Amino acid sequence: MTSKQHIEQTETKFFIFADNDTEAFYLVSGQKFGPITLAYETYGKLSPKKDNAILLFHALSGSQHAAGLNTNVPGAEQYWTEDCHVGWWNDYIGPHKALDTNRYFVICANYFGSCYGSTGPCSINLATNKPYGGAFPILTIEDVVNTQMKLLDHLGIDRLLAVIGGSLGGVMATDLAIRYPQRTICVVPIASGPYATTLHKLANFEQIYAIEMDPNFNYGNYYQGQPPAVGLTLARIIAHKTFVHLHVIEARARDQIIQSEDDLRGYKLQHQIESYMLSQGKKFIKRFDANSYLRIVNMWQQFDLRRSGGGNLATAFKNCKQHNFLLFSIDSDVCFWPEEQDWLSEALKANDIDHVYITLHSEKGHDSFLLEPELYTANIKFLLKETYRQLVART
Amino acid sequence: MTSKQHIEQTETKFFIFADNDTEAFYLVSGQKFGPITLAYETYGKLSPKKDNAILLFHALSGSQHAAGLNTNVPGAEQYWTEDCHVGWWNDYIGPHKALDTNRYFVICANYFGSCYGSTGPCSINLATNKPYGGAFPILTIEDVVNTQMKLLDHLGIDRLLAVIGGSLGGVMATDLAIRYPQRTICVVPIASGPYATTLHKLANFEQIYAIEMDPNFNYGNYYQGQPPAVGLTLARIIAHKTFVHLHVIEARARDQIIQSEDDLRGYKLQHQIESYMLSQGKKFIKRFDANSYLRIVNMWQQFDLRRSGGGNLATAFKNCKQHNFLLFSIDSDVCFWPEEQDWLSEALKANDIDHVYITLHSEKGHDSFLLEPELYTANIKFLLKETYRQLVART
Repeated sequence: MTSKQHIEQTETKFFIFADNDTEAFYLVSGQKFGPITLAYETYGKLSPKKDNAILLFHALSGSQHAAGLNTNVPGAEQYWTEDCHVGWWNDYIGPHKALDTNRYFVICANYFGSCYGSTGPCSINLATNKPYGGAFPILTIEDVVNTQMKLLDHLGIDRLLAVIGGSLGGVMATDLAIRYPQRTICVVPIASGPYATTLHKLANFEQIYAIEMDPNFNYGNYYQGQPPAVGLTLARIIAHKTFVHLHVIEARARDQIIQSEDDLRGYKLQHQIESYMLSQGKKFIKRFDANSYLRIVNMWQQFDLRRSGGGNLATAFKNCKQHNFLLFSIDSDVCFWPEEQDWLSEALKANDIDHVYITLHSEKGHDSFLLEPELYTANIKFLLKETYRQLVART
Repeated sequence: MTSKQHIEQTETKFFIFADNDTEAFYLVSGQKFGPITLAYETYGKLSPKKDNAILLFHALSGSQHAAGLNTNVPGAEQYWTEDCHVGWWNDYIGPHKALDTNRYFVICANYFGSCYGSTGPCSINLATNKPYGGAFPILTIEDVVNTQMKLLDHLGIDRLLAVIGGSLGGVMATDLAIRYPQRTICVVPIASGPYATTLHKLANFEQIYAIEMDPNFNYGNYYQGQPPAVGLTLARIIAHKTFVHLHVIEARARDQIIQSEDDLRGYKLQHQIESYMLSQGKKFIKRFDANSYLRIVNMWQQFDLRRSGGGNLATAFKNCKQHNFLLFSIDSDVCFWPEEQDWLSEALKANDIDHVYITLHSEKGHDSFLLEPELYTANIKFLLKETYRQLVART
């Protein structure tokens, strides 16, 4: 990782809508909800024609802070630990990088429902002057995408050059392309898939159960007491093994076995692997809110892009014929398995939609998309440059 | 499954040792422990020469009740639910079955540390007149095997015709062969392996954490209060997905979604898969003790047959040259993956040890060894019959 001194400072901005002065916002469930704040960052400059914008969706526990250095997000201080300070795609965004900020204007917003400055369960409900907690509504992938369309409207961007996302962010990028086909040209889902598989549902359900059954959870109303730290620790442990390749876990688990008195209730850690996993879980709870985690896992548990096609995935893409898709799968991914991207590719093929589908060889597993810019950069750069060149030539 | 009316009644017997009247028993840790009761059942008749005995090891949450019908085990009433009544290998044990009780004498004992009548954490500690609870010692695979050798001594059996076990029971069968090579001729480990892999350690650790961090757990001292039901439910949910093939989970999860008020703290079950997994977890806690579960998972977490070979698996088998091994792996097994049996086979090959190694095609996953007698019977019968024929011919 680059030394922090040389990283450009960035700043989170806030877009507020669905307040008293603006149009109401309705969730997919039909519920009216507002006001909504989206925390977002931008990198590069929007062209006068506003035709060089790229919208980037983060993954489950990511944030709006995709590039540069940001040591403080007003309103998110509680969860903005040092792990958040360097942008999660810093090696992919910047001059001459995959998303070249000399050419493009990159936007990344924190999910509606998350805890890094966008409205979520830990935000103050103006009706009660207390955090929403358990009263915060259940959200869907579509709700998150819909809020980000409001941000694009606000920024005056009719059509994106590209929408890009990894993991659950890839799902959102694809949903945007399906439901708002006129609003993007390129679509780049990385290590994602078309619906929650049985394996996803099993892993997610374990995590939901772990968090909600922590006695501190109290139906999500814990902000005045202790958070469900044990449940969220276990949830992260359960999830982490699907993000990181087993060999990476083994390689990282070489430190001493460290066990605090309060870590367990009798069991003595036997292996460095146990100690490593526990430390991952305990680190995570400092930077994330359990209610936000549940809301996002709930979105994941429910997502099914086939719904947009009346149950048929190919039909869902029927309005995407003008898009340029670039799909990446990771051969060692056990979170979104490579076959899940096959299903996307088959659906595109059924619609004769232009797409490049690349299965990368990586020894890092799902997290490859965060760690190995060298595997992704050439294809992303080429797609953006060619598309932008043709766009400019046409207009 | 056979209708219960036609199943022969069986009875659990109890063997007590390491009491005041008998030799002391030492755990591998060096700790002296006693008295110890082993709950066991036998099927068929021991030959006058005592040369037709087969010792069968059950899996993690199994019991001594391998065949027939047993509706009551004195001292284990609390956990002896209807799920336990028909022997877990009833379709494999009986006249003309894989373990033909017209020919052989089959012994199965509940693990030391379990909760079906053998001494375990829920047994009364005579020193305090209370259950051991958290004070019950940490055990190893070797301790379980050593207690069962005492049972063989008690029954006057010098050498088994065969030792057989599935899953963790297969590990015990193999350990017996390695450390007591003179005491068996055949060795049949099914869907097991030579050591706890990283994947085992990850899944086991999640389960340990889930149970111990349940506030009811109280360092294992919960018998006078509520058991850690939430933790054990989650542990079973985590484990169950490795026992049963995904397609089987999907096929079984076709019933209605059933959610009791107390099942979660806000989340509404979305999928039949969630409802099915939760029902599996909740069913399990009625028939098993969390402390026993932890003791057995702890054995699993620590087991490494390579230790008997000074770290080398091939060396561990150096005294097994006279054994006949029959190894089964299951191609859809994601608990003990097929490659784990490859490692056993390689070690046998390195010692020129006679063995038949069969990878079965099954769509049931790990649990195939409990469900599909038709896949195992021919090879087991053939091995036992040929071995016994040669044995009788030699003597």
